Amino acid sequence: MSQLAYEYGSCEPAIDELITRFGDRVSLSDAVRERFGKDESFHPSLPPDAVVTPHSTEEVSEIVSICARYHVPVIPYGTGTALEGHVGALHGGVCINMLEMNQVVEVHAEDLDVVVQPGITRKQLNEYLRDSGLFFPIDPGADASIGGMAACRASGTNAVRYGTMRENVLALTVVLADGRIIQTSRRPRKSAAGYDLTRLFVGSEGTLGVITEVTLRLYGIPESITSAVCTFPDVESAVNTVITTIQFGIPVARIELIDETQIEAINNYSKTDFELAPTLFLEFHGTEAYAVEQAQSLEEIATEFGGGNFKWTANTEERNRLWQARHDVAYACKAMRPKGEIWATDVCVPISRLADCITETQADIKDAGLLAPIAGHVGDGNFHLCLVVDPDDQDERDRAEALHERMVMRALSMGGTCTGEHGIGYGKLDFLVAEHGEAVSVMRSLKQALDPDNIMNPGKILRI
Amino acid sequence: MSQLAYEYGSCEPAIDELITRFGDRVSLSDAVRERFGKDESFHPSLPPDAVVTPHSTEEVSEIVSICARYHVPVIPYGTGTALEGHVGALHGGVCINMLEMNQVVEVHAEDLDVVVQPGITRKQLNEYLRDSGLFFPIDPGADASIGGMAACRASGTNAVRYGTMRENVLALTVVLADGRIIQTSRRPRKSAAGYDLTRLFVGSEGTLGVITEVTLRLYGIPESITSAVCTFPDVESAVNTVITTIQFGIPVARIELIDETQIEAINNYSKTDFELAPTLFLEFHGTEAYAVEQAQSLEEIATEFGGGNFKWTANTEERNRLWQARHDVAYACKAMRPKGEIWATDVCVPISRLADCITETQADIKDAGLLAPIAGHVGDGNFHLCLVVDPDDQDERDRAEALHERMVMRALSMGGTCTGEHGIGYGKLDFLVAEHGEAVSVMRSLKQALDPDNIMNPGKILRI
Repeated sequence: MSQLAYEYGSCEPAIDELITRFGDRVSLSDAVRERFGKDESFHPSLPPDAVVTPHSTEEVSEIVSICARYHVPVIPYGTGTALEGHVGALHGGVCINMLEMNQVVEVHAEDLDVVVQPGITRKQLNEYLRDSGLFFPIDPGADASIGGMAACRASGTNAVRYGTMRENVLALTVVLADGRIIQTSRRPRKSAAGYDLTRLFVGSEGTLGVITEVTLRLYGIPESITSAVCTFPDVESAVNTVITTIQFGIPVARIELIDETQIEAINNYSKTDFELAPTLFLEFHGTEAYAVEQAQSLEEIATEFGGGNFKWTANTEERNRLWQARHDVAYACKAMRPKGEIWATDVCVPISRLADCITETQADIKDAGLLAPIAGHVGDGNFHLCLVVDPDDQDERDRAEALHERMVMRALSMGGTCTGEHGIGYGKLDFLVAEHGEAVSVMRSLKQALDPDNIMNPGKILRI
Repeated sequence: MSQLAYEYGSCEPAIDELITRFGDRVSLSDAVRERFGKDESFHPSLPPDAVVTPHSTEEVSEIVSICARYHVPVIPYGTGTALEGHVGALHGGVCINMLEMNQVVEVHAEDLDVVVQPGITRKQLNEYLRDSGLFFPIDPGADASIGGMAACRASGTNAVRYGTMRENVLALTVVLADGRIIQTSRRPRKSAAGYDLTRLFVGSEGTLGVITEVTLRLYGIPESITSAVCTFPDVESAVNTVITTIQFGIPVARIELIDETQIEAINNYSKTDFELAPTLFLEFHGTEAYAVEQAQSLEEIATEFGGGNFKWTANTEERNRLWQARHDVAYACKAMRPKGEIWATDVCVPISRLADCITETQADIKDAGLLAPIAGHVGDGNFHLCLVVDPDDQDERDRAEALHERMVMRALSMGGTCTGEHGIGYGKLDFLVAEHGEAVSVMRSLKQALDPDNIMNPGKILRI
């Protein structure tokens, strides 16, 4: 089916109705539309026709109902930190800015869960929770909104221990394409009552409905947090350390591989002095004795695989410096070239193939004459390529695109996925088909069942 | 929509074709059909018109294609250990016996995953894995088939630590209602590539397709396993111990509440001498030092809430005796009354409401003059009522039904779910609607999108 199978209505009458109802909470200004048509990816801004800012689930339902009546696309927007063109208005339409729906609705400390509006960011939530002794662990790097994280099935550094949004969203309130409001589930830790609607909407990138409330699992802040750094002679020995750690069931909270090029970028940008070598950044959560036990076990394993310079610390400031440097890798990469633009992408493979996938990709980067540091959530078999490309150099862009395609196809040939955590957006549509084959037609059937007029964030995930 | 909205074809021509293709792997005998029309629930047998036994995904696809051509219902069957009438042939049709598709396809020890055919049982799988140092933890009590466990989103005693089938199925091969074969996902630990088809089929109870291959997460067998028992003055103090344990992040592998009546039944049946009191059965997995640390922390917490008689053991035989007694509760309940039939049911609530839900239910049991021991996976807020009912006493059956309905509605009013792990089958159809409201119409849209002629296990989950 082509992109043109759907006929969208003119936005004007819909926008008129929205202005009548929401007044100056509807913006038509170029600057605002430009901003809301862009995420943090290399994809250009595709501005929507209008941006409207609701304050409640019921208001979202009204907005969607108006858009549905006129067959006008609806694009939910959180913080715009997605990485595959998730918010671009490919077919025009109305962007729903969720950022003013950012309240904590209810904290259930005894049940270790919290109900929030989707516009709250993960840092705002953890700030709110600080005195309760609880925290929400999922950390994709960016200070993304919880609604956006749910919509994109975000994960990040802590996923190896705490899972991704898939495991940590307990329930959602969703506005469907016809304006109906549903609850996908309730708060209990588990249920065998009917189809798993929660997991269907988690990762659906706004294409099946607008998430207007999220119930999340929380965790007690660990008694002790210990971070560590360890260097290796090559990527393979680092990855073998990771495999053995996971096999021994050591519950590392974070286990990140940073390649030599990425270490160089970090040292320059964050003024650190890490040794130039493939390096693991680690974190252990638990009681004090247990965190130490974990760190010691890991040091033993690393030593066996030729790792060295094992340094660990429970000092909060030193830990924060380490993880800030890790989170700043994209900026560090950008700083490596004055005219460089960042093209961040990711794949995920079964961990047994991770060393091969990374080393073959590194060789490919060298052959292509490109600058592309690698960092990864290696406990999950997931790694990121941060291509630093001169946007004005068409030849370099072509080489980057070819390299990117080879990396994704390599991951697929190893039984992996075309994206571990960035999502499909409209940047990886073809790779989704390469990965899932016939199953994509099932995805399309689901989309058509829930959004027959294809107004919900059209052109993302599925090319329809 | 009524149950009669769909017109099914006569089974005869479909069965003729199946016999031509599969010969004596099609059974029409009364005894076989009777057996395959019944699970372990109190629901009566509803025999299918024929039972056919495939040996491969392709053969399942052929069977479903034949049934689809004649509009004949298809009912997949694993071990028949479900508890809500999941396999009854409400509208006749063809039962697919998956039990001869019971091979381990591939073990990926480094990736901690395994690919199996759906007819293998969890004990067969763990027997196969024994020498690899790996195990599959999900334990619903019965030695169920892995395909059935996936289809019913099974969980059980270990779920508090390892999650349910929702968290532990990585990928499925599924035969759809028109005979198409899809892979829902690949083996990596995480993916952000498209809709989560795996979680859609996990828990769909055979109503969206037939599961023909399952990829599961595995875990290293813990270095040390310690079990413990502890008694409490009342249910509330036991539950408060559980809440505090979970809040402190102590990763108990099992934490089961057994009420006084259930302890009495166990002592009689399993020849044990547990004190007659609300009791927690516990298990800790980890390194030796860590398992002991967990057990000690738990003893401290229990003592604070009035718990006593804390006994723990790392002895394998003693541990096995304890968990065998736990797994035999249904038989123990049955043995309490010579003419008693078991009606096992479950609900799950946010843990903060668990003590209230259980004690109100206990009072209700007493008022109704019924025998109904309680045991529960309390770390998840999930508990089971094991009604022991004289099937010939209509008045007692009515009281049991009324009590059951009150318990489910109580759980719903506390923000809970009508079933934590048993599923909907056709026994809890009305409760699904009471729980999910408008969301049930979304489930119906999904069902219609994937199975427009409603041939896949019709009448289960949805009354259509």
